[in-house]
Amino acid sequence: MNKPTVPKGTRDFSPIEMAKRNYIFNTIKEVYALYGFQQIETPAMETLQTLMGKYGEEGDKLLFKVLNSGDFMAKLSPEELAENNSLRLASKLCEKGLRYDLTVPFARYVVMHRDELQMPFKRYQIQPVWRADRPQKGRYREFYQCDADVVGSDSLLNEVELMQIVDTVFSRFKIRVLIKINNRKILTGIADYIGAPDKITDITVAIDKLDKIGLEAVNAELETNGITPESIAKLQPILALSGTNEEKLATIARTIASSEVGLKGVEETRFILEKLKTTGLNNEIELDLTLARGLNYYTGAIFEVKAVDTPMGSITGGGRYDNLTGIFGLPGLSGVGISFGADRIYDVLNTLDLYPQEAVDATRILFINFGEKETDYCLPIIRQVRAAGLSAEIYPDSAKMKKQMSYANAKQIPFVALAGDDEMQAGKITLKNMTTGEQTLLTPQQLIESIT
Amino acid sequence: MNKPTVPKGTRDFSPIEMAKRNYIFNTIKEVYALYGFQQIETPAMETLQTLMGKYGEEGDKLLFKVLNSGDFMAKLSPEELAENNSLRLASKLCEKGLRYDLTVPFARYVVMHRDELQMPFKRYQIQPVWRADRPQKGRYREFYQCDADVVGSDSLLNEVELMQIVDTVFSRFKIRVLIKINNRKILTGIADYIGAPDKITDITVAIDKLDKIGLEAVNAELETNGITPESIAKLQPILALSGTNEEKLATIARTIASSEVGLKGVEETRFILEKLKTTGLNNEIELDLTLARGLNYYTGAIFEVKAVDTPMGSITGGGRYDNLTGIFGLPGLSGVGISFGADRIYDVLNTLDLYPQEAVDATRILFINFGEKETDYCLPIIRQVRAAGLSAEIYPDSAKMKKQMSYANAKQIPFVALAGDDEMQAGKITLKNMTTGEQTLLTPQQLIESIT
Repeated sequence: MNKPTVPKGTRDFSPIEMAKRNYIFNTIKEVYALYGFQQIETPAMETLQTLMGKYGEEGDKLLFKVLNSGDFMAKLSPEELAENNSLRLASKLCEKGLRYDLTVPFARYVVMHRDELQMPFKRYQIQPVWRADRPQKGRYREFYQCDADVVGSDSLLNEVELMQIVDTVFSRFKIRVLIKINNRKILTGIADYIGAPDKITDITVAIDKLDKIGLEAVNAELETNGITPESIAKLQPILALSGTNEEKLATIARTIASSEVGLKGVEETRFILEKLKTTGLNNEIELDLTLARGLNYYTGAIFEVKAVDTPMGSITGGGRYDNLTGIFGLPGLSGVGISFGADRIYDVLNTLDLYPQEAVDATRILFINFGEKETDYCLPIIRQVRAAGLSAEIYPDSAKMKKQMSYANAKQIPFVALAGDDEMQAGKITLKNMTTGEQTLLTPQQLIESIT
Repeated sequence: MNKPTVPKGTRDFSPIEMAKRNYIFNTIKEVYALYGFQQIETPAMETLQTLMGKYGEEGDKLLFKVLNSGDFMAKLSPEELAENNSLRLASKLCEKGLRYDLTVPFARYVVMHRDELQMPFKRYQIQPVWRADRPQKGRYREFYQCDADVVGSDSLLNEVELMQIVDTVFSRFKIRVLIKINNRKILTGIADYIGAPDKITDITVAIDKLDKIGLEAVNAELETNGITPESIAKLQPILALSGTNEEKLATIARTIASSEVGLKGVEETRFILEKLKTTGLNNEIELDLTLARGLNYYTGAIFEVKAVDTPMGSITGGGRYDNLTGIFGLPGLSGVGISFGADRIYDVLNTLDLYPQEAVDATRILFINFGEKETDYCLPIIRQVRAAGLSAEIYPDSAKMKKQMSYANAKQIPFVALAGDDEMQAGKITLKNMTTGEQTLLTPQQLIESIT
């Protein structure tokens, strides 16, 4: 008998972990709903036709593929077998794969259901995704994504509301965050301005690392990628840009004044920041021209969120994209979305010890089991307690008192009820507060009031 | 470009379907929690070592297997390939599979985490499972199970509480149900009594069909399976048993008086039914000696729940089992569990039109977008509305009124807010009730009160 294990890179979630995760997911869901987003779910498996070619060559390799059912070998020719090419053979052996993210399934959903959907369509989706990545600390092969997107509207009010959602969610978590915002169009304008429009990807990939590797290393990388010294020189004042968001916007607008698309990006960013002043945010929002995030995907606003009080990478991100569904034959549908990093938020809440007690509370009261007679006395009372909305248990066996009390302790149950002969004769229960040790003799109704 | 599809037997869930499903899952979760059950989650993938051989030969074939990542062909010898045996090759190509139910992963979980677990361990788990079954009406390849189990306690109070849970859940759904109960030990006693102890599986499989195929067909099946005419004759009064639960128990106790294990089953059933009288049930519970359900698995009480007001198979079931974890090297751990059939409950709630309006309500109020000036006026008001816990949207584009109103209609938004020049000058908003058509001019505070 081998010891059972879980597959590499996957995890079980214990009751306490689930309570914390539910707190995170429920908070995000509540806020999404407050803004009129509606939940959808898609199947864990998608056809490989839907998944392949959407995440680059590397992504294709990281897809978990599901073996065809039945006699899958019958469909293989001896030649195909003899070729012994794993990658090519996989597509013969498998027609389905596990979803790699929520974006491609969402695009597929929108195309398949376009006739039922009312545009703009505001959906959220909280489901696991799977990637055959090499597992390492904080990186799993199964993890949840929590996405919200609006498709079918170009209005920047969507960006404004997504920022409000981010602000509200982290306010509820009591995590202080810095929201960073940028715009792909400004980045295009910068590439135009420094005379390297064709190098925009290299430029943004490099300057995105400014925080991590510093200015010198960024410049070195730029040079390696064939950006001319003149272009690099022109870029320096932009990288060094400081001041308020308004000051930065004013400076960059002057700098890239010759780039029409660049100015459009400035204007969009100004609109978003101004509207957010009207609504008010609890957290700071900062224009960061080095922010790039999956540049080839985003076409307008780009967001990223970091915790202020603990070092941790991006805990939320998103942006505007064009043509979400073009790849499935429905062109012209643009959208904007955000994605909360649940695993990282989990860690931040743990590090900063921010889980509210009620989120992790399990059972409110345990009734001690002294035997059948006492149980008969307790059962109708327990029913009343539960009818009042309070979670209650009776220890199922009339085990030793010590064992029952250690069960209460292990489950962190705050109250214990005891009813022996005296209590039964008086029609009462002794309530023990497990924190203070205090014991009180109460009627069932008083007991309910005491623990509510 | 091919039209995108989902894999055979899988489904997308739209916002309205998700709202209904969430209503079902949340109700079940709340009741589980009220009884001190705690949630866990396990990975979608398990090792094939964990999964294989647990569901019979047929089950092994119905497992979705996940292709090994990387160069999976490299591990295959030319001989293995030449053999061209799909089933044998699958175990070389795949090390992981998708979970087939929640019971085996739970057993694996208990064994792996035994040192952290406080016994009795009361867990619930609501996750999808996957089976490569031939899809048909009401049968999917991906579907959710909602299981609750208590392990590590032999007390019949666990059975009592599970029946209370069933009763509470369906009371909350307002679905009237009949709870059927039986006991494997009574079935053993019956097999002993009619002189066919070795035929217990054949007997129970046959009499389990009494409802569906009728007495004659059952008797024919018994005969086909080699039960003697004498045994079949002795079985007839038991199949025809009627009266109250007490009367049935009294009769069966007399009939199988010579079977020690049979009497133990009677005693257990009597205990459960008596305790349930103490606590009181909203729904009827009925002793049904023909109830068998996965007999080879259950060792004590067996339950099944059917809706009274619409024909539908079993919508919940469960029972007591021994030795859940023996197969993983941890013997002697018994338990008892139930499983709600979410898909069928979904259909019953639809058929009987029992979804509460608030469960499917999405956005409470839509603010019409008349342009930037009006939006600036509305944004802080919308913030207030949301701060009051009311879901609100502003239409992101200043589209034609008709388009915005049809958005509200399509999303079944009950209130619409309008603010033009007059309203802005007065510091008010016009609130339109979409059901009555009534329009009222209100302050922001009055608006919040009106729609709360």
